[in-house]
Amino acid sequence: MVIDGNTRAGDDERYMLEAVKEAARAAEEGEVPVGAVIVKDGQIIARAHNRIEASRRSSAHAEMLALEAAEEKLGAKWLTGATMYVTLEPCSMCAGAMVLARIARLVIGTDDPKTGACGSLYNIASDERLNHSIEITRGVLAEECSALLKEFFRSRR
Amino acid sequence: MVIDGNTRAGDDERYMLEAVKEAARAAEEGEVPVGAVIVKDGQIIARAHNRIEASRRSSAHAEMLALEAAEEKLGAKWLTGATMYVTLEPCSMCAGAMVLARIARLVIGTDDPKTGACGSLYNIASDERLNHSIEITRGVLAEECSALLKEFFRSRR
Repeated sequence: MVIDGNTRAGDDERYMLEAVKEAARAAEEGEVPVGAVIVKDGQIIARAHNRIEASRRSSAHAEMLALEAAEEKLGAKWLTGATMYVTLEPCSMCAGAMVLARIARLVIGTDDPKTGACGSLYNIASDERLNHSIEITRGVLAEECSALLKEFFRSRR
Repeated sequence: MVIDGNTRAGDDERYMLEAVKEAARAAEEGEVPVGAVIVKDGQIIARAHNRIEASRRSSAHAEMLALEAAEEKLGAKWLTGATMYVTLEPCSMCAGAMVLARIARLVIGTDDPKTGACGSLYNIASDERLNHSIEITRGVLAEECSALLKEFFRSRR
């Protein structure tokens, strides 16, 4: 059991690091640094970062783009068994989209007390009233995820 | 004042009827019949219906497609001053997307007690904690909007 736990924690950090790399790319492009990867059966099937400014689409959050890419890759509207890694706690839109896509597990880097909808303002991702509920793990590489955001907003002032 | 009120109510029914037509198109295509139109400065700038099955995208709700189309048309990520007409109370994803797009007003046909996020399960569209709050009008052509959904699910049983 300890071995399983360690393995999973190790995997979580490894995959979150890939999400952090995506977030760093967003910052380079002048986008709020949030990154996401989706993993299924031990493989990264989609990765994305915020593209709100580049696409002029208010919904172009990393998570939405990763969900779309994963569904396109699998040719399926449900991502049963998949895990979403995202550097920042998802907003209402993204949490709702994950429930619709039937993501199995959500791993969060740092919390978003202002707009987070997975425990902060709401808990949409694991609301038992909805027809799908997502297992949540939080605080994985939280410092790295948070530092990218802080640096971005400090440089913008 | 009564005249203004009447005019607005008349406009609301007229635009909601266009959303109902979109919902009817969805039903013809085997999609859950939900339709949406977005109006700005007295003009319909976008219209859409559910395309979840056709696109194999779990996020292809009428509202999301209408928001994307409107932002593309205007070349802008914010739809300031626009009104969204939708036949069914939006879910968390769609309500969150409307807040991000800064929709000014939301007119709802019929309520969705199971997954509605604009007064039923949550009230994301007008949550004062978020940085944008949407004015909501509900129950416009509610019977027509609801009848389409009931007929669709009855025919599927």
